[in-house]
This record gives sequence, C-alpha cells and structure tokens, in this order.
Amino acid sequence: MTDRAKIIEILKKESKFYLISHMLPDGDSIGSLLAMGEGLQKMGKDVRLFAPGYIPGKYRFLEGTESIVHEVLVNDPDITMIVLDSSDPDRLGIFKDAVLKSKVIINLDHHVTNQRFGSLNYVDSNAAATGEIVYGILQELQVELNRSIAESLYVAISTDTGSFKYENTTPHTHRVVASLLEAGLNPGALSQRIFDERPLSFYMLMKVAISGLEMYEGRRIAVMTLSRDLRESSGASTDDLEGIVNYTRNIEGVELGILFYVESEQEVKVGFRSKTLDVSELAGNLNGGGHIRAAGCRLQGDFQTVKERVLRESRKMLNEPGV
Amino acid sequence: MTDRAKIIEILKKESKFYLISHMLPDGDSIGSLLAMGEGLQKMGKDVRLFAPGYIPGKYRFLEGTESIVHEVLVNDPDITMIVLDSSDPDRLGIFKDAVLKSKVIINLDHHVTNQRFGSLNYVDSNAAATGEIVYGILQELQVELNRSIAESLYVAISTDTGSFKYENTTPHTHRVVASLLEAGLNPGALSQRIFDERPLSFYMLMKVAISGLEMYEGRRIAVMTLSRDLRESSGASTDDLEGIVNYTRNIEGVELGILFYVESEQEVKVGFRSKTLDVSELAGNLNGGGHIRAAGCRLQGDFQTVKERVLRESRKMLNEPGV
Repeated sequence: MTDRAKIIEILKKESKFYLISHMLPDGDSIGSLLAMGEGLQKMGKDVRLFAPGYIPGKYRFLEGTESIVHEVLVNDPDITMIVLDSSDPDRLGIFKDAVLKSKVIINLDHHVTNQRFGSLNYVDSNAAATGEIVYGILQELQVELNRSIAESLYVAISTDTGSFKYENTTPHTHRVVASLLEAGLNPGALSQRIFDERPLSFYMLMKVAISGLEMYEGRRIAVMTLSRDLRESSGASTDDLEGIVNYTRNIEGVELGILFYVESEQEVKVGFRSKTLDVSELAGNLNGGGHIRAAGCRLQGDFQTVKERVLRESRKMLNEPGV
Repeated sequence: MTDRAKIIEILKKESKFYLISHMLPDGDSIGSLLAMGEGLQKMGKDVRLFAPGYIPGKYRFLEGTESIVHEVLVNDPDITMIVLDSSDPDRLGIFKDAVLKSKVIINLDHHVTNQRFGSLNYVDSNAAATGEIVYGILQELQVELNRSIAESLYVAISTDTGSFKYENTTPHTHRVVASLLEAGLNPGALSQRIFDERPLSFYMLMKVAISGLEMYEGRRIAVMTLSRDLRESSGASTDDLEGIVNYTRNIEGVELGILFYVESEQEVKVGFRSKTLDVSELAGNLNGGGHIRAAGCRLQGDFQTVKERVLRESRKMLNEPGV
C-alpha cells in the first residue's frame, strides 16, 4: 500500500486533524491549508488550522483565514498532523516541536527537496503546487468542490505558477484549474486582487528603483539599488520589496538582474534574477542560495565593497557560462 | 447545415486560401492567422497570410511571421478568404476592398460585436480568443498539433486572456491550453517573452509617469500624465505607452485610473481603466468609446481645460454610479 493510499484511509477514518503550513505564508501554503481544512470539515471532521506567520493582506479575503491560528499549538500526540507545502520541519517555525511529537504526521508537498520527515509522505515534485495535490486528495475523498474551496485552490495554484506562466505549469495544472472554474469562481476578480493590485507605496519605491537603474556589460546586467532609508521614506513595507527585483530581469536584453538592498552601513541583501542563467550558483559563490532563476545572498560590508564583489562574480559568471 | 459545418466542408474541398487578420495586429490575430495557415498547409493547401499592419517585435519569433504580407493583396474573386478576429470589414484596413470582392468569405471571430460580414460566419462570443475557435476547427480537420501551431495558438489565447487572468477565461480555455502544452511548448519561455519583457525605454517612461502621479477623491481616482515631449525624450515609442495606463488601475483602492497623453498644445489623448466601473460610458460622454473596463477618448483643447473637464465627468460618474 502506498503512502498516498494510507493517507486517504487515515483521512477517512480519523476524526481530529491539525493542519499546519509554513513560515512566511505564500499563496500555495495558505490556499492548500484552507482547502484541505474546509474539505475535511465538510466530511464532518474536527479541524484546526495553523500558520507560523503573518497572512499577507491580499489573501485575507479567502474564506477561513480568520480561523488560522498563528501563536500557540497545544500539543497532543494523538492528534493527526497534516503538514502542507513544507520541505523540512524548520519551515514550521514555532510549531515545529509540537508537530514532531505527534504519532502520525502526514506530509503533503511538491518541493523536490522535501526531506520526507512525515510518518507518511506524499511528495509529488511534478505538481506545480501543493494545491494540485490537495485537489487530487479531495477528489479521491469525493468532497464536492464548492466555491470557497475552489477559490483557495485557485490561489494556491495560480500563485505558484505566476498565473500559469512559469515552466512548472503542466497540462494537468490547466485541467485542474478548468474544474475549479466550473465551481463558479471568477478568475478576473481573483487575479486582479492577487496579481495586479499593489499599494501606492509600491509605486513610490518602484520610481526610486528605476531612477537608480544602472546597466553593465553592454546592458546584459541590470542593477537596481534600494536602502532601508529609501524604503522607509517612500512609506513602503518590506512586502513591497518583493516584486521590485523581478523588474530587473524583465528589461529586454538583460541576462542578469540584481537588486541591492542596503540594510545598514555594514549589511547588504542582494537578489539575483535571470531568464537563462543559473543564479543559484552565483548566489552560492557568495554564501547565499535559492532557485535556478531566482536566488540571493546577504553580505557583510559597506555597499561599495559589496557591490564591487558582486559585480566581479556576476561578470565572471556571465562571461564563463557553464563554469 | 450550420455555417460552421459548411466552413469545415470548404476548408476540406478548396485548395487555395487567403487568410487575413486585422489592423494593429495583436497576439490573438497573429497567433490565429499563423495557426490556421500552418494547419491548412499541413493539409496540402496553398495558403497566403496577410496582416494590414506592423507585427510587434515580441511576436516575431513565431514560425511563419516572416511570410505575412503587409502591403498588397492582389484580388482574385475565386480565392476563398478567411478573415480572423475582425469584428467588421473596416478592421481589414488596406485589404478591405480586395477581401470584400471575393465570392466566399469565411468570417471567424469571437467578438460579440461582429457584424457577420462574411458569406459564412462562425462567431462564438463565448470563446476567450479567436485562437480557441481555430483550435476547434483544426481538431475537427484532424490536423495534428505540432509545436509551432501550438505556440501560435498559445500566444493567441494567453494574450487575449492576460495569461488566463481575465474574466473571459473559461474551463474550456484551460482545457484547450492543456492540449497545447502537450504538443511540447514551454510556457515559461513563451510567457516571459510575451508578458514580462519590456524595453528599457518602457521603464524610463514608467518612472516619469509615477513621478507625476496624482490622486483625487480620497485616492479613488489615480491620474498619470505623459506628453509626446516626455515620451520622446525618454526614448520610448508609442508601443511603450501601452501598459502604462494599466498601472493606474492597479493601485490599491483606486476605482478609476486615468492616463492623460498630451499629443500637442491642442490635443490630449485620455485612457480610462477601472476594476469596477463601466468606463466605456465615461468615455462615451466625452465622445470616445471602448470596453467596459478599458476605454478612452481624444479631446481638443489645452491640457488644463481638458483635464478639468475629464475630472469633472469622472467625479460625477464615481459619485453617481449607475446613472
């Protein structure tokens, strides 16, 4: 019997579940948490939802977010834990220890790096989002897709695929989303809210970032620079920094986009983006890490020294690809 | 026998076709033109492609764009015309007269306003894009979806739905796209190219636009102002103006976004965007027109006079919705 089959059996049989997703909650973790929770509730189960971190405002319209607990998870080893979208237990933050004491831990995830820390692990790295995995489980449990479950799953899948633009999007992804749309959700209203709307402060920060835009190596490298001071004076939050770095990569002809964020006189956060290069390697050379097209590092030192070092490494990578 | 069935019969029987799409070619018109053309060629037909206008650079990677004729369509009334994505014959620009002289005109479109000017009309306003209609026809003709046809159809459908974000996106849209992905296209590379990449000049223009951003009516109206002089000095083309206006609507809390583009001392182009209001009505009150969420007008007069008039009408609409 596969872990997946055992998981389905437990979900049918047991009556009480704690569902937990990861720190710095994103669309997939929140959407998967809410959809799985509501699905089990519809089966008559007693369910509690936990997320070790702040739910970004743009996701708070989803039904059920107000019931997510952020602070305390009282441990009871007999309760079945369902961990969603979390590649390792450290991602559970303050809930890690309580979760790991449980006898049964169901680990549902799509990250290829998942450490299979559950007592039962269903990890499918071909799934574009954990939301796709939750969809499959709810189908198997014959839970009817109502509008709120469909909306949560739509948020999960659309955010992890950048509205179906990223290369992780598969034919199956689109077929799942077709079924979600049939449950009556409005993709126009949802997408406007989760993708297009930005606070005014974001635009103020964007203006500063473009004003300081520099191009190197025949416009193959684009560099934006922001600082904590600039961010604070424009009224922007650290949330607003997200997204700015993507613009460096989106300039025509640019192979490597860099955002320097000067945290203090002695610390600089560096974000890398590319359409073609493996920036996780570049970040790795600077004691950072990340994904192949999106990575970063945090360097000690004054801005000029850090910038020169980063540009030196960047030029090296750009001119010796594959090394 | 429906027009659709007659069209299928003609496509099977006839051997020579001219395919024409509309002025100011967009992703749907170009993608539909190329996919239909290649499909018919694979059936052994003699096909020529026409588009009365410049193909934007970001679509020129599509196989077959180099064979699209922009200048002269020599008329032969016996050749079957296939008109794509064009709601009325005026949209065919310089090709209009030559097309209308033909005995058989097949009109394939998804615009609800289509004037059914063909001798055979297959207009499906539930289709998110003309590309969806072409997909259905090629399926019925049993044309195998190769990678280049799939890419053309993907461009057609993804651009007309804003990467599946607009409310015209249906379950059928996603199922069609699932099949396109199975033909081996890479959604990541395609989407980066058609949605995310912008020339450097676009960012320069964006900076100017944000710098002049003004908010009215308790931040419910956002106004950006650009001028021909500003555009030219930033090195941006009129293509780059496209997209800027959308940012006005995307500011949190904004109900009405306005872009003033000062063409000259006596003429101002005005673009309107909204998430909730019918801006076609607002534009209509100012002798313009457009869609419900995206419309515009062109007004004579100096900028200050035009601006005051537009803001007056805008406030009226905002404060008396439904009037």
